[in-house]
Amino acid sequence: MAPTYTMAGGKGPNSYSQHSTYQRALLEVAKEKISEAISTKLEINSASNRFNIADFGCSTGPNTFLAVQNIIDAVGQKYGKETQLNPGDNIEFHVLFNDHSNNDFNTLFQTLPPTKRYFVSGVPGSFFGRVLPQDSLHVGHCSYSLHWLSQVPKGIADQNSPAWNKDIHCTGFSEEVAEAYLDQFKIDMGSFLRARGEELVSGGLLFLLGSCVPDGVKMSETMKGMLLDHLGNCLNDVAKEGLINEEELDSFNFPIYPAHVAEFKSVIEDNGCFTIEAFEKISHANEEFPLDPEFLATTNRVTFGGVIESRFGKEAMERTNELYEKKCPEILPELANAKSGMQFFIMLRRN
Amino acid sequence: MAPTYTMAGGKGPNSYSQHSTYQRALLEVAKEKISEAISTKLEINSASNRFNIADFGCSTGPNTFLAVQNIIDAVGQKYGKETQLNPGDNIEFHVLFNDHSNNDFNTLFQTLPPTKRYFVSGVPGSFFGRVLPQDSLHVGHCSYSLHWLSQVPKGIADQNSPAWNKDIHCTGFSEEVAEAYLDQFKIDMGSFLRARGEELVSGGLLFLLGSCVPDGVKMSETMKGMLLDHLGNCLNDVAKEGLINEEELDSFNFPIYPAHVAEFKSVIEDNGCFTIEAFEKISHANEEFPLDPEFLATTNRVTFGGVIESRFGKEAMERTNELYEKKCPEILPELANAKSGMQFFIMLRRN
Repeated sequence: MAPTYTMAGGKGPNSYSQHSTYQRALLEVAKEKISEAISTKLEINSASNRFNIADFGCSTGPNTFLAVQNIIDAVGQKYGKETQLNPGDNIEFHVLFNDHSNNDFNTLFQTLPPTKRYFVSGVPGSFFGRVLPQDSLHVGHCSYSLHWLSQVPKGIADQNSPAWNKDIHCTGFSEEVAEAYLDQFKIDMGSFLRARGEELVSGGLLFLLGSCVPDGVKMSETMKGMLLDHLGNCLNDVAKEGLINEEELDSFNFPIYPAHVAEFKSVIEDNGCFTIEAFEKISHANEEFPLDPEFLATTNRVTFGGVIESRFGKEAMERTNELYEKKCPEILPELANAKSGMQFFIMLRRN
Repeated sequence: MAPTYTMAGGKGPNSYSQHSTYQRALLEVAKEKISEAISTKLEINSASNRFNIADFGCSTGPNTFLAVQNIIDAVGQKYGKETQLNPGDNIEFHVLFNDHSNNDFNTLFQTLPPTKRYFVSGVPGSFFGRVLPQDSLHVGHCSYSLHWLSQVPKGIADQNSPAWNKDIHCTGFSEEVAEAYLDQFKIDMGSFLRARGEELVSGGLLFLLGSCVPDGVKMSETMKGMLLDHLGNCLNDVAKEGLINEEELDSFNFPIYPAHVAEFKSVIEDNGCFTIEAFEKISHANEEFPLDPEFLATTNRVTFGGVIESRFGKEAMERTNELYEKKCPEILPELANAKSGMQFFIMLRRN
């Protein structure tokens, strides 16, 4: 069964496609780094006219279109410089858009940029497994997806387990809970890297962007951790009002884990297929989310609304979001003093 | 703009996915021919572990899954015989499902066979143009799609043109109308073959299945022609009832043209990229449609309902279909005496 935590589909006012400007800002910042990396680290095989690019966890657009166009432009420039030939006449780019099979690919396909000059494939399937043929990929990209785990870790949702996490996510975070989440992250990130290692050609590049937690900082001390706690509190309120079964809520958790830098690095090193060419903090135009209850509630809704609705129903989801926005001002002072999270830019080269 | 004549999406009672058994029967008959052809005509490159198969005009399934599995099984058998190796361990099959960008790919992806052992891509775009990289395809397949034209031919919908076709399709078929349709077919089929010629590797095979008209027979003498005339009459009745504007109906035509055998062959020969390895009439389990008004009305609805609804609205479409079924018994004697159409099996080899 495909998991249900894809982003909200369609093009409507509550869709991911309309509310991914925060993620987009990171892409804008990463654009130059990617161009620079392709210019200096990518080997162009001028004997082949084919160049394949994949975006893993593409969602419905439009960010994915921006991301792949950046890569295409950079590859084209490098090709032009090295060969003195026009890349448009000589390279055929094939872009593979990957996401879960229940992602809204129809919207993705219907909103493709009319000016695109590349072949398009939608590739359904979990990126924790293989989704592309061996040695078929030249550049891979994955943005704001790797904090999603393949599942809620074992024990986390089980009242009888020492790793039971009653409080949705952060506040409680006992040692056992933290360990269970980290173990799952290692398994999933390991699977992701193993699969990409088989798909990428030797010398191919893999760009990873997203949010992680600086070493020495607890997730619950960051704004994103606090917001997740806030969501947990609102869900508890809705349970008290009777729209959510309290026992069901006690066993409910999100399959997400923003790893610490050292944890990330160690999984990549253990995998052994890749050389870390860059692992940097990049500064985001809006470093953390703006302290605006309406913005925060909408972001919460397009990201977590689908999971909540599929588990507890539409009414509970709507009520949770209403409370989320209404009670948000109470936590603004706390949010203003949160420790900084980290937006990462990772470049890996396939050995 | 992508045209609107994709098949009815989803999985509901009026979906194409539930009503494509007629098309499926042809696939069953073609299965052995395809296996035989692959066994004798395909050259296996045992140095490469990659094998790419595309279905052009795949719709939403399930027929497309059957078609590609037939091909995979046949290639696997041939590979096993020639190399004494297990194809499952040595070849990676990549299946590219192509259809218009407004095809319901979400349904396709969510109903993929759970036992499939191939990589999946959905490829959005008109097959009258390039949709895949050069030399990237080993076997192509296209079933029951090539009677669709890219557009209603010029002049056909224009009251002031000598090629104006007031009567939807068949009955009127003046010389000018016939010529306009044939010209459009030549353009479109030429474009299709040119694109496939670039996508297929040398020696690659292209299987085309569908309905055409035997030389010397007029479309209006075949059952499918008669049914199209019947649909035209029903649309006229609905216009008289006031649900459709008569003038709009006068300029309405379907972009379909089941070519004659000689016309088909001549376009293939003019293209020059392919050798015709087979061009056969194959007998279909239910040679023509069964003479059952309910079946015929449902088939009509899933095939043409979408076009009619998008042009004249849902109410007009529903009423047309109601009349179609109700008045169907009147034409059953005529249908029973129709001249035979032809189900074709064409195998082309890329030179």
